[in-house]
Amino acid sequence: MLPFARVTIIGLGLIGSSIARAVRVAMPTVRLTGYDADPDVRSVADRLQLCDDIAESGGTAVIDADLVILCVPVGAMGAAAADFAADLPAEAIVSDVGSSKAEVLRVLTEALPGTIVIPAHPVAGTERSGPEAGFASLFHKRWCIVTPPEGADAAAVERVAEFWRRLGADIEMMAPEHHDRVLAVTSHLPHLIAYTIVGTASDLEEVTQSEVIKYSAGGFRDFTRIAASDPTMWRDVFLTNKDAVLDMLQRFSEDLTALQRAIRLGKGEELFDHFSRTRAIRRGIIEQGQDDPAPDFGRSHD
Amino acid sequence: MLPFARVTIIGLGLIGSSIARAVRVAMPTVRLTGYDADPDVRSVADRLQLCDDIAESGGTAVIDADLVILCVPVGAMGAAAADFAADLPAEAIVSDVGSSKAEVLRVLTEALPGTIVIPAHPVAGTERSGPEAGFASLFHKRWCIVTPPEGADAAAVERVAEFWRRLGADIEMMAPEHHDRVLAVTSHLPHLIAYTIVGTASDLEEVTQSEVIKYSAGGFRDFTRIAASDPTMWRDVFLTNKDAVLDMLQRFSEDLTALQRAIRLGKGEELFDHFSRTRAIRRGIIEQGQDDPAPDFGRSHD
Repeated sequence: MLPFARVTIIGLGLIGSSIARAVRVAMPTVRLTGYDADPDVRSVADRLQLCDDIAESGGTAVIDADLVILCVPVGAMGAAAADFAADLPAEAIVSDVGSSKAEVLRVLTEALPGTIVIPAHPVAGTERSGPEAGFASLFHKRWCIVTPPEGADAAAVERVAEFWRRLGADIEMMAPEHHDRVLAVTSHLPHLIAYTIVGTASDLEEVTQSEVIKYSAGGFRDFTRIAASDPTMWRDVFLTNKDAVLDMLQRFSEDLTALQRAIRLGKGEELFDHFSRTRAIRRGIIEQGQDDPAPDFGRSHD
Repeated sequence: MLPFARVTIIGLGLIGSSIARAVRVAMPTVRLTGYDADPDVRSVADRLQLCDDIAESGGTAVIDADLVILCVPVGAMGAAAADFAADLPAEAIVSDVGSSKAEVLRVLTEALPGTIVIPAHPVAGTERSGPEAGFASLFHKRWCIVTPPEGADAAAVERVAEFWRRLGADIEMMAPEHHDRVLAVTSHLPHLIAYTIVGTASDLEEVTQSEVIKYSAGGFRDFTRIAASDPTMWRDVFLTNKDAVLDMLQRFSEDLTALQRAIRLGKGEELFDHFSRTRAIRRGIIEQGQDDPAPDFGRSHD
């Protein structure tokens, strides 16, 4: 028994197109409809046959859906929902894949009064963007965090959870506010730091950009991958999860100042103690299958 | 014509053991001697047959060498050199693989008066440590920066460069001080930032360590790899390249403060502009073969 029979995906970038591909593999009898506000993306999606049907408007896309998943930048959620609100069937469930949840829940609830809204966040992705970057196995063994509003319909929550299980994800339930604090540290702060350091490196006068690129294998290149992520998506994440991000950033800055001081004063033991402590988390990540156990992320050296 | 016929490697960790393996492949007729101050490492190296001979002291290790490469943490270079100084043949060339160069050149020159010292730095590695972590292809298509002192013997410099070319590396020449500023941004600062953020994440009270591990695929896991690097090695790098690291850190902190302010004030356009700018460097790194072109570092998603 499938959780949904007619699924509409609004936004056909990396995540939306990966959902389409994964649904094809895992639930081939589901009728899939797609829509993207960008006509170029619609035509690529059409050519790739990502869905049974690529609609020409948000309204026609949702007209017979029992699940609508918004896969647009979090700052565009409200407008995307308002665009199809009048055509949404009364019994349809609306979900999304946004990286900040409290603000998205607020905006979707406001744009879609009376609709069952069950936000979710698959913690998966790559640095690539667009409909051609997606792939069916993106969610395999990744966590999908479902963040229902208080008092949400339990059956609806379970159907959304089951949908993600079918795509290969493991499910966790969380309050939207707690999600936003957890992801501020495991995702948003890392992206902000990576964007910062890549910017710092490209602004140096005395070290040329070509030197930065040439010797990036010393560690810097790891940061450039994350800093190649979609700028619109990340602008919106920081603007919609401002408080949690600023709080985590404050803690990070304090810790950085402490290490800076240890370097300045030549406190080798303090540095050694700090650097020894951080290995345990890596071990946990490997043991729980959240990263490649091969050295150097499994990069090829041949 | 081989650049050296009898090579001694002092320190048989990731880099030293990789050099040994690479020499076996690229220059099989070279007579290889190894030494490590840790008897456990010596016995592993012996079992793995990394060298023709594993010596029981630094002095016996260098006694007939024409090249001695120090592969110990930069803080241990002086003591390691002093340990074999009395037994070093007059015509032997001494090199090293340390990540900071001005201080290492100073220390080695002091410990080995009259000896030709040609420091070098292969920009390669993984997060693993120890003699079992090395592999022969580690230096393939990676840069090796040779940092001769002013007025160094040109033939000696060329022999060291040729040695690294044979191991698959590309060669660049640089003044030690310039090397230290370039690597401060492409390697030392990234490691410091990674160590900091992993520490910050593990200190949070309200987000548990298990949550940090579970949802690390959102970006955080990338930082944990670097933060699993050898603590002794990195303590020494920061203590011996203090000025350049503190200067880069200062610039990074200023840039981070600017982004923090943009988030606080909701300046979306400023964030978008910054995040758009950082993609070009990633492209350059991929184009120049300094990272895996596959998305997500080529990590497996199946």
